[in-house]
Amino acid sequence: MSDSIRVAIAGHGLMARVHAHAWRTMPYFFQVGRPVEVAVLLGTDPERTQRAADSLHIRQTETDVQRLIARGDIDILDICAPGDAHARLTIPALEARVHVLCEKPVGTSLEDSRRMADAASKATAHGVVAMAGYNLRHVPAIQEARALIRDGALGSVISIRGQYLQDWLTDPATPMSWRLRKERAGYGALGDIGSHIIDLAQYLVGEDIVETIGYTRTEWAQRPTDSSDGGHEAVTVDDSAAWLGRFSQGSVGTFEASRVSHGHHNQVRIEIDGTRGALAFDFERMNELLVAQGGREPGTFRKLDVTGTGHPYGDVWWPAGLGLAYDHTFVHLVAAFIDCVETGTRVSPSFRDAHQVQSVLASIESSTRTGRWVSTAS
Amino acid sequence: MSDSIRVAIAGHGLMARVHAHAWRTMPYFFQVGRPVEVAVLLGTDPERTQRAADSLHIRQTETDVQRLIARGDIDILDICAPGDAHARLTIPALEARVHVLCEKPVGTSLEDSRRMADAASKATAHGVVAMAGYNLRHVPAIQEARALIRDGALGSVISIRGQYLQDWLTDPATPMSWRLRKERAGYGALGDIGSHIIDLAQYLVGEDIVETIGYTRTEWAQRPTDSSDGGHEAVTVDDSAAWLGRFSQGSVGTFEASRVSHGHHNQVRIEIDGTRGALAFDFERMNELLVAQGGREPGTFRKLDVTGTGHPYGDVWWPAGLGLAYDHTFVHLVAAFIDCVETGTRVSPSFRDAHQVQSVLASIESSTRTGRWVSTAS
Amino acid sequence: MSDSIRVAIAGHGLMARVHAHAWRTMPYFFQVGRPVEVAVLLGTDPERTQRAADSLHIRQTETDVQRLIARGDIDILDICAPGDAHARLTIPALEARVHVLCEKPVGTSLEDSRRMADAASKATAHGVVAMAGYNLRHVPAIQEARALIRDGALGSVISIRGQYLQDWLTDPATPMSWRLRKERAGYGALGDIGSHIIDLAQYLVGEDIVETIGYTRTEWAQRPTDSSDGGHEAVTVDDSAAWLGRFSQGSVGTFEASRVSHGHHNQVRIEIDGTRGALAFDFERMNELLVAQGGREPGTFRKLDVTGTGHPYGDVWWPAGLGLAYDHTFVHLVAAFIDCVETGTRVSPSFRDAHQVQSVLASIESSTRTGRWVSTAS
Amino acid sequence: MSDSIRVAIAGHGLMARVHAHAWRTMPYFFQVGRPVEVAVLLGTDPERTQRAADSLHIRQTETDVQRLIARGDIDILDICAPGDAHARLTIPALEARVHVLCEKPVGTSLEDSRRMADAASKATAHGVVAMAGYNLRHVPAIQEARALIRDGALGSVISIRGQYLQDWLTDPATPMSWRLRKERAGYGALGDIGSHIIDLAQYLVGEDIVETIGYTRTEWAQRPTDSSDGGHEAVTVDDSAAWLGRFSQGSVGTFEASRVSHGHHNQVRIEIDGTRGALAFDFERMNELLVAQGGREPGTFRKLDVTGTGHPYGDVWWPAGLGLAYDHTFVHLVAAFIDCVETGTRVSPSFRDAHQVQSVLASIESSTRTGRWVSTAS
Repeated sequence: MSDSIRVAIAGHGLMARVHAHAWRTMPYFFQVGRPVEVAVLLGTDPERTQRAADSLHIRQTETDVQRLIARGDIDILDICAPGDAHARLTIPALEARVHVLCEKPVGTSLEDSRRMADAASKATAHGVVAMAGYNLRHVPAIQEARALIRDGALGSVISIRGQYLQDWLTDPATPMSWRLRKERAGYGALGDIGSHIIDLAQYLVGEDIVETIGYTRTEWAQRPTDSSDGGHEAVTVDDSAAWLGRFSQGSVGTFEASRVSHGHHNQVRIEIDGTRGALAFDFERMNELLVAQGGREPGTFRKLDVTGTGHPYGDVWWPAGLGLAYDHTFVHLVAAFIDCVETGTRVSPSFRDAHQVQSVLASIESSTRTGRWVSTAS
Repeated sequence: MSDSIRVAIAGHGLMARVHAHAWRTMPYFFQVGRPVEVAVLLGTDPERTQRAADSLHIRQTETDVQRLIARGDIDILDICAPGDAHARLTIPALEARVHVLCEKPVGTSLEDSRRMADAASKATAHGVVAMAGYNLRHVPAIQEARALIRDGALGSVISIRGQYLQDWLTDPATPMSWRLRKERAGYGALGDIGSHIIDLAQYLVGEDIVETIGYTRTEWAQRPTDSSDGGHEAVTVDDSAAWLGRFSQGSVGTFEASRVSHGHHNQVRIEIDGTRGALAFDFERMNELLVAQGGREPGTFRKLDVTGTGHPYGDVWWPAGLGLAYDHTFVHLVAAFIDCVETGTRVSPSFRDAHQVQSVLASIESSTRTGRWVSTAS
Repeated sequence: MSDSIRVAIAGHGLMARVHAHAWRTMPYFFQVGRPVEVAVLLGTDPERTQRAADSLHIRQTETDVQRLIARGDIDILDICAPGDAHARLTIPALEARVHVLCEKPVGTSLEDSRRMADAASKATAHGVVAMAGYNLRHVPAIQEARALIRDGALGSVISIRGQYLQDWLTDPATPMSWRLRKERAGYGALGDIGSHIIDLAQYLVGEDIVETIGYTRTEWAQRPTDSSDGGHEAVTVDDSAAWLGRFSQGSVGTFEASRVSHGHHNQVRIEIDGTRGALAFDFERMNELLVAQGGREPGTFRKLDVTGTGHPYGDVWWPAGLGLAYDHTFVHLVAAFIDCVETGTRVSPSFRDAHQVQSVLASIESSTRTGRWVSTAS
Repeated sequence: MSDSIRVAIAGHGLMARVHAHAWRTMPYFFQVGRPVEVAVLLGTDPERTQRAADSLHIRQTETDVQRLIARGDIDILDICAPGDAHARLTIPALEARVHVLCEKPVGTSLEDSRRMADAASKATAHGVVAMAGYNLRHVPAIQEARALIRDGALGSVISIRGQYLQDWLTDPATPMSWRLRKERAGYGALGDIGSHIIDLAQYLVGEDIVETIGYTRTEWAQRPTDSSDGGHEAVTVDDSAAWLGRFSQGSVGTFEASRVSHGHHNQVRIEIDGTRGALAFDFERMNELLVAQGGREPGTFRKLDVTGTGHPYGDVWWPAGLGLAYDHTFVHLVAAFIDCVETGTRVSPSFRDAHQVQSVLASIESSTRTGRWVSTAS
């Protein structure tokens, strides 16, 4: 056992940057047995990988997952690369008993996520941890909401509303990127942000979505290439989607995901209605949770500030009212991951959970073609 | 021609009260050629009708629509009675060349609304006006939104979100009423409030919904009878519903209506995303319209106060910032009705429009059974 | 005794319009012993008065208060004329045992309001009612707040924040009007809207302001004349003011009034902090009251919807969630007035209360000159 | 010159924790010439200091500022200790040419801050940097607001509203701490949080407050000792304060600071009205700035999202809409400090600026006693 926990990050986009920050910040706020070091950046092209590593202040680089594994000094592989690399990187790593944290949605297809979930199951037997990077589960208000629902504060769930709206593709002049190519990303808005609200909804309600019907559409069918050669390239994924989802106990959700929604840089809204109460969360006010409970005070929402002592992470950071943000959720994510590694806590979300989300994505896509409700059983 | 416009109101619930107020207030704020008088209350049971008339300060009563018509002194029949009375009252009135304003959704079925629309078409030839009471069209912010969309401020519409949430049935001890009986109301939340957001969405977008898929459900299948005899009665309509709707030009809407949504006495939310901008309306802040436009100011919403000079009804009421409420929308509604009567302006919403909404309701109900998209063509 | 309650309205601006609407609407929603009739419009210039009466649908006019009184058929004089007419109209009316409702702030000076309060005291002995038109007391949320404070929900009051912000004078090209002339209006923003938050604060806290320090200022010292002759006229009142006020039991308020505040057509914000809880009201969301209470739920605000059964006026109008607006507060005001006339209920706000507000205004103005705290005792 | 920038932190409360995090995070997001190391924790009691250093992951400790200086390896002293230590630590450090960052409000009195400002002036001649820790200047929305005002978007400023409200002392059972002792903290709510809104207001408006009148009060005059011996101790500072402040060019501000305000964990609200527009900021929504501008769109606020490219720090962190929080402002603060150290940029806020804030605090306290406007000239 080395004297530090050594992490390799795969990828060098936004997620790599956010994860590197999280790994470096976490040990100052959570108890970890050994120091944590972001030791290696794993890329594909040597030169680009080196430039990225410099920018991310990571000392070493690798461009081959087998060589990375063969080093024998890496404890954790944190995959922040595009979806088409997920299965290819995850499976050998898990087989070599390297813990894997993989950004969501894992893989680009149901086939990918099934193979990854299977590999994770096998690895578990050896104490190897595999976790999916659904960071929004680690928003304090979401943890609080989860606890309220589990404790029965809402009674049984009647309906769910989920929206994830972004505006970064509203301009048709915005060029192509890997996120707009089916072979690399799997899905568009549906997979990238739709997967978040599916996971959130299932996590909060504590039930799986068993059937969906929906549609996906692409407003701008082609975009300028990302090489500024004046050419255009076909967009092969959706830029917006909407769907209904039936949960296993009979409640129904209404969902929408869009990257072409003016006015919303990044709005995530989840509202849950139950027989005894309701709650509402909006990422734009992520330190608040709105809760309505019948009986005593019918018809009103209470604004619950979820910072401060007594709330999730309330004693980890700053006093009540100072608030957390986007990047703190990744600190919570890697802290939860390390906790699984060190103490064997149950992984949440597991690759099995992430595979379930992929099943929902696949069923929505299928329902777009068939025009009828499609089961998520796969 | 009598020297005043004489109105008969049918029904004696909340709507009768709101309409009576509207008829009495309107002439002080809008130009009308002759005085307006709420002259007769039309009911069924003589005693109950008399009590209601006293409470509403209406001098005369009738309990038979034929007798009402035979009087020959009624210019307008304003139908605020339950849905099962709509067709029965409307058709003879129109045939007798009495103008008809009918609360929404007109009738309890597609059959009802078709017959009413046909009667209205015939009556039009004789200058007789038939209008449906979708009062939310007359919210100033909605008028403003309609103008913005028609003028191209949003570009072409991509997606629509509509929610109408109420909490008045959250308590299973709330007793039965006519609104919970299929034979009298036609639908539950779907028809009563879902119809509002369907009409609003179609009106704002300027397109019909041509296909839907959705579900309806009833959380509380029976309730105490309204006669406090300790018994229970089956609830025969839905208490919540959700659906997707495809518009004629290809945009898609996500809708939900619920009477079992804690924390929302009466929330009506409409959001529309287009290629050039977006807008959002919430009835809880009915004097505001949120507008986002790309280009100059990407990623932000502007709060447009729709009161004051230059805005719809801005010169009719009070100076900017003082605001209007629920009941003013009915004043606008009856003013628009009178305008049709006096000047022959095009009726909006017509019985044909209301029949289109009924087609959407019927298609949603049908899709609940078939599990697939259902056309609204009927 | 005539068979109806006959009201004369003095003045023909916005307030006359709002009051006429209130008198006509009230009897349909509140119990009154006799019919109410807005019978006479009292003005100064015969021609202008006639035009105004036509526009307000009032049949008769008078241009002399003595003649009005001499008619003997007027029960109530409702004074909506500029402040310099208040004392001149009120005093003979009260002496002739005509009930008087007078718009706020009563008179243009401490001298006016003292004389009016004295006249009111004498009139009371004869069962004659005199009330000041502080309509904001009659906002349901304010009534609810008053009850909460009186019942101890906030403990003892520590501090108060009050703001009344308008934007109608932000443009220096906006022409003169009587509201900008000291001899007619007494004060500018301070008197017109500052008086509202003083009255509200004193009413809610249940204590008088005993000492103030503040300032008044005038950003635009002259404006175009209102006769469009190309000339300019000096503005002789303030357009913004701010002050601190000490209450009799030791709490302190921070206040601001402005007519040159961009972005605010008409914002009225009152927040009260007490030892056990806090509350916040904003006229832009007038059907809500925010309440925070320590102990059970530290650090959160609950949004209390004040419509519906169990709330002030909850059974008078529409079901919960439909909401009221600006003009309904005047209906409540005249209903309260009639209640005093018919049942002898204690007048609130009395001319004595209104005189106390004038004392506060005078002390603020005086403190602007002296630069020190000034007592409101007068 | 050492191969890294070595920072010593004085103090071990919340601020030490926040600053240590900032120093460690900053180099990953901002360009710095050399690595930064939080090398030493400076305390008073050896044992407590060691425990704090362990908890903060700082390797070395010192308990004497002279010894710390004598080491010769410290580049920066970052003072997070209570106010009574500020001058005592700052002056020898600056004389020894150690750069000093000192938490606000610097010192506990005007005498302290004057001496510190004088020491800073001398040190500047030698290229030594002294900066005060008013972190709220580094909120992106505040930077954006500053730029808007400087560019004339608001015209000339008419009035300012500032509120800083907390609830941590609402419970009289909350025990004593150094923040409640005059000799250690100087002031209570006035100094700790009032100083923030004074600095913010002066920074935004670009003018000094030249005169004030206000009050301070203490609701709970004694509290349980912090040693749980069952005893009580006198609170010797205020727990709330309110004041008016006149700015050098004639605008006037209304301010309030409170630690006994239920419902507000940490609300910071700043609103500025100018002749051409207005803006509003609320720390509870710190990634937004509300802006109203006359002319084109009278009467409306636009919600400006200040994250993303084109906004302050928009290219440093995450894409638009993901948002920053409290702790990021400290990262910006230490980045600005390092920028001064490395490039000689003008310090903002300087000790001279912080001394000006102390002058305002002293004038408010003085005005509480004298009951009249007090100049801040000192």
